[in-house]
Amino acid sequence: MEEHSTQILFQIFVIFTAAKLLGVVGVRFGVPAVISEIVAGILIGPNLLNLVQIEEWTQALAGLGAIILLFDVGLDQKLSDLLKVGKTALAVANAGVVVPFFLGYGLMLLAGYGQIESIFMGAAMVATSVGITARVLQEMGVLKTVVATVILGAAVIDDILAMIMLAIISSLREGVDYVQIATVTGMAIGFTVFILVVGERVVRRVTPRVQRFAGGDPMFSLALIICLGLSLAAAKIKIAAIIGAFLAGLVFSEEELTTRLKPKIHALYEFLVPFFFVTMGMQMDLRVLARGDILLLASVVTALAILGKLGACGLAAYRLGGRQAIQVGMGMVPRGEVGIIVASIGLGMGTISDEIYGVVIIMVLVTTLMAPPALKVLFAKPSAPAGGAVPPPTAGAEPEQSNPPSG
Amino acid sequence: MEEHSTQILFQIFVIFTAAKLLGVVGVRFGVPAVISEIVAGILIGPNLLNLVQIEEWTQALAGLGAIILLFDVGLDQKLSDLLKVGKTALAVANAGVVVPFFLGYGLMLLAGYGQIESIFMGAAMVATSVGITARVLQEMGVLKTVVATVILGAAVIDDILAMIMLAIISSLREGVDYVQIATVTGMAIGFTVFILVVGERVVRRVTPRVQRFAGGDPMFSLALIICLGLSLAAAKIKIAAIIGAFLAGLVFSEEELTTRLKPKIHALYEFLVPFFFVTMGMQMDLRVLARGDILLLASVVTALAILGKLGACGLAAYRLGGRQAIQVGMGMVPRGEVGIIVASIGLGMGTISDEIYGVVIIMVLVTTLMAPPALKVLFAKPSAPAGGAVPPPTAGAEPEQSNPPSG
Repeated sequence: MEEHSTQILFQIFVIFTAAKLLGVVGVRFGVPAVISEIVAGILIGPNLLNLVQIEEWTQALAGLGAIILLFDVGLDQKLSDLLKVGKTALAVANAGVVVPFFLGYGLMLLAGYGQIESIFMGAAMVATSVGITARVLQEMGVLKTVVATVILGAAVIDDILAMIMLAIISSLREGVDYVQIATVTGMAIGFTVFILVVGERVVRRVTPRVQRFAGGDPMFSLALIICLGLSLAAAKIKIAAIIGAFLAGLVFSEEELTTRLKPKIHALYEFLVPFFFVTMGMQMDLRVLARGDILLLASVVTALAILGKLGACGLAAYRLGGRQAIQVGMGMVPRGEVGIIVASIGLGMGTISDEIYGVVIIMVLVTTLMAPPALKVLFAKPSAPAGGAVPPPTAGAEPEQSNPPSG
Repeated sequence: MEEHSTQILFQIFVIFTAAKLLGVVGVRFGVPAVISEIVAGILIGPNLLNLVQIEEWTQALAGLGAIILLFDVGLDQKLSDLLKVGKTALAVANAGVVVPFFLGYGLMLLAGYGQIESIFMGAAMVATSVGITARVLQEMGVLKTVVATVILGAAVIDDILAMIMLAIISSLREGVDYVQIATVTGMAIGFTVFILVVGERVVRRVTPRVQRFAGGDPMFSLALIICLGLSLAAAKIKIAAIIGAFLAGLVFSEEELTTRLKPKIHALYEFLVPFFFVTMGMQMDLRVLARGDILLLASVVTALAILGKLGACGLAAYRLGGRQAIQVGMGMVPRGEVGIIVASIGLGMGTISDEIYGVVIIMVLVTTLMAPPALKVLFAKPSAPAGGAVPPPTAGAEPEQSNPPSG
């Protein structure tokens, strides 16, 4: 075989294996796969071991990974459930978007950065990682409590608001132009509404016909074609490709379709998504943290990212009672994939620097790492009357089942 | 988003959609997906519509497609069944390898081509496409007849012999060096034996431990890591990467493991394999057929490819009776993916020309297209006593169920 294709195969092998091996190690310590894969990327990337470099094909695989990731996130969110989400969840979501955005934006302006870089930082601080929180809640068996419902509802709305924000900022190239922001917002909303209204009807009509074709799984092919097509359409009208993928997921999120699509999408997910996160890690240069000012900025940004969500979302959920409000606030802390995506788009556009990219990655790593153990402590049954934890007054908010807090 | 990543996304969308759309059209006319995808590649590729070009990322995706394809082929073939295959199957396989190889090799030498190009042509004429024949037999409900068993057993042995041949020829760069051939053959056999003997034991021991890890599907990850790792190992010792993937499939083909792996591998297959065949089609320049000598060569090669298998394999199966022998011969005719892989490796190494690549593609297309309808006619129940088709004398060789021949 040719030298170069062997070289590509070597890099694919190293990326995938490093991601999965670190994932296995991570699972033992309760570290989510997102984190393990980013760390794998930092390790094997050009800034440390230099086993792999970012080339065009790496970006193609990473891009496919991001598209499948967002398609899967969309698949998990039923539109009908979204519309049913209560007032509390809506309040939590809004608070959790507005406060962190302005904290990030304001801090960056204060630190002397430009408008666009400040907006990117604000946007990266907005999105809650539904996946990580949902998984922790599921592992603890408290998915059906009021607190969990509020957290998940709010996180989903958060994600959608973050997507709209991303649609806007991904069009900001040369500067802040209010006419352009209005245009893109209009297009993004129009695109979203059009796809959700027309898309679901088309899918419902086309699906029964597609089923009749033999050969492979035509539904799976159709889903991928629509996912790739909407991603392309989004990219063509200058909003991020992943927004199209996310909307495609929403269109297919109808119960019956999803149950058959999910396992297949998951297989693609398990293969492709690691390429996305490892590539994200490869772009992180740990040396930026050697600079005192960047390290300070990273610390302040991370602190604000935690306190902003904890405070704003906790306050917005005050009606659930004190302990529950804190649980909701903590559930909204992990940033995960969407924050990374915002930062990588900024880096790709050349609108944010390597330093700011590094700061965002640190913020995402810390918020994502701290949330699971913190949630476990907060959701633990107050069996020992040590800390004066009074049983919560609100009925129905009691965790159905919980594990002892782990170290 | 950046212009270039949108461009890549556009090409990914076009390749995948064209492959699947043509696949749907093809299914209506009984055309196998391999063919539809190659034709899609010819259509959208640089030589006709020029919607897509071959770039590094296309080759990376196509390479992954070939690896998953061969892994899947390996998964389908149980080692234990292989060892049980009868004498007739062995005779059919050997005849079906030796005769077509020397027909192709001899013809090319006669036509004035060099040693290496002639060897490549011989090798491309060897491998029977297990997938296509198996699918036709399955659709007709005759998979459990003696004829089907012989065909499938022989096709599997064929594939393995073709792989060994491929291992040898992929190391032929500058010329025919018998010492080198001996070395590579030794290495290929050693590699194969080592992986099959050691590999299966390791997999059996490691699997129960891997199962205990939470997070994702560790078995699937392990299978992919081993598949990519063995592909890389094969490429490093200068035999084709896909041989490693094929061996990895054989290692995992143990019943219990396969049933859980298969659906996930199939999801990857459905996404990635089209990139391989479309890319193969993209490299085909139909204009080479405007040259009279090439068209003549293509016709003769195709005729020999059909008659070689039909005659050699039919003769080797004479003991099954006349009609059954012809059925076996015809079942061995389609070349499918392995022929294409041989040609593409030759093209990539620069050892075969665009013209010869075109000839191989034509041969593969024709043999693969003609086999399914021919098999349907040959397997049809001789209900009308028109053609003097005497009921076969051999017991157990009667098709269990068959459909009327389709137009």
